[in-house]
Amino acid sequence: MILAKIHVTLKQSVLDPEGSAVAKSLHALGYDEVEDIRIGKYMELKVNTNDPKQAAERVAEMCEKLLANTVIEKYSFELSEV
Amino acid sequence: MILAKIHVTLKQSVLDPEGSAVAKSLHALGYDEVEDIRIGKYMELKVNTNDPKQAAERVAEMCEKLLANTVIEKYSFELSEV
Repeated sequence: MILAKIHVTLKQSVLDPEGSAVAKSLHALGYDEVEDIRIGKYMELKVNTNDPKQAAERVAEMCEKLLANTVIEKYSFELSEV
Repeated sequence: MILAKIHVTLKQSVLDPEGSAVAKSLHALGYDEVEDIRIGKYMELKVNTNDPKQAAERVAEMCEKLLANTVIEKYSFELSEV
């Protein structure tokens, strides 16, 4: 079994209104040292295979097709045996 | 400046309907090797300080107060200088 830890984040050039809203809330709570915040998704996916190379190909495909919107988002992942 | 990379995930005992929906979609796309998927949040936060100890305390506070719902979610973070 292979565990894939996937990060999907907005591309740097894309506005992040959710992040801006959270930054404002943090400032309102007194955390003035917060300069910038970007919010993305984190997914943990268990894949029933023992071939890391094949798993990497399949997970990249899943990201392209469903898990990330590659027009505005980028993804990265790391695999580990579990 | 310190960059905090924060992961907020549902506790293991909490149902993840979003994850189940994504797992079903992946199966429908032919990715039958996917066994389980859990979806969380990933945040990158820039903190304007140079004291890592103070930053860790403040970021933990932010997680407790705003960024995570500690009834159903757990959080972890790592800090790095930028």
